[in-house]
Amino acid sequence: MGKKIATLITNLFEDVEFTEPAEAFKEAGHQVITIDKHAGNEVTGKKGATVKIDKAIDEVNPADFDALLIPGGFSPDLLREDDCFGQFAKEFIQEGKPVFAICHGPQVLIDTDLLEGVDITGFKSIRNDLKNAGANYKDEEVVVSNNIVTSRFPDDIPAFNREALKLLAK
Amino acid sequence: MGKKIATLITNLFEDVEFTEPAEAFKEAGHQVITIDKHAGNEVTGKKGATVKIDKAIDEVNPADFDALLIPGGFSPDLLREDDCFGQFAKEFIQEGKPVFAICHGPQVLIDTDLLEGVDITGFKSIRNDLKNAGANYKDEEVVVSNNIVTSRFPDDIPAFNREALKLLAK
Repeated sequence: MGKKIATLITNLFEDVEFTEPAEAFKEAGHQVITIDKHAGNEVTGKKGATVKIDKAIDEVNPADFDALLIPGGFSPDLLREDDCFGQFAKEFIQEGKPVFAICHGPQVLIDTDLLEGVDITGFKSIRNDLKNAGANYKDEEVVVSNNIVTSRFPDDIPAFNREALKLLAK
Repeated sequence: MGKKIATLITNLFEDVEFTEPAEAFKEAGHQVITIDKHAGNEVTGKKGATVKIDKAIDEVNPADFDALLIPGGFSPDLLREDDCFGQFAKEFIQEGKPVFAICHGPQVLIDTDLLEGVDITGFKSIRNDLKNAGANYKDEEVVVSNNIVTSRFPDDIPAFNREALKLLAK
């Protein structure tokens, strides 16, 4: 049966880090629900892709979703201005639900305060932030630890999607 | 006598977080030298301001400067891809030279690994990264600690410039 995947996204996301996983997840029969501060508007990626926001963060409950996707770009930094996105992600990690974060996406996971001892990767510029959060930073195309799947940049998307789809199929 | 202020900057800097401090420092008789990965080219701010890069990071020595300025925007994140900018900043802190960082600028200071116990501020989205680096995050317009002057966003520039100019006048 298809899973419901909450996606935390706002402007300046890295276009293909949303579009390609979202397409792969939908093709496999899953549902992708986009979530930002406000619902109904469109957000625009760094290269111009537009995405309609389905739900506002204050009208959703982590319990209603099976997994979490956080694309990269500058979107995660913009989301982090508000504590609620880290709090939302926190419940997925606490419940052991699959979490997929690529590039700068893991920045939002730092705000869960639950990365201690987790193997992780992400864009090189945030490596020291991930280490300081207690995670074990690895320079690998995909890292899976505690049901958290992370990758570094767009070239890693095939490996990222492969590992994410494996967890969604369980 | 005028001081030499090294400025770490690249594309997508927050325009006024460079232009306003640079103007204030020059008016007070100081010299502002812009530094990026490569010299000679122009970098462009988020709102379109252009800045000519004076020096490449691999041709400068921290010993040749009296102070350091790091404007915000997404420029600090882009700089952090390369370890050398954090290493460059590290020598200023080790020598007790004035360091001025605003908004996302303190991200580069995280890479010095010298923020333990330092009082600091910065843009809200990076607060947990600063805390995880051992700094004491404060939500104040300007924080001065260990000759490190930090501010949160463009509205804080008058306070930021005031405290920076005080240290430069010493």
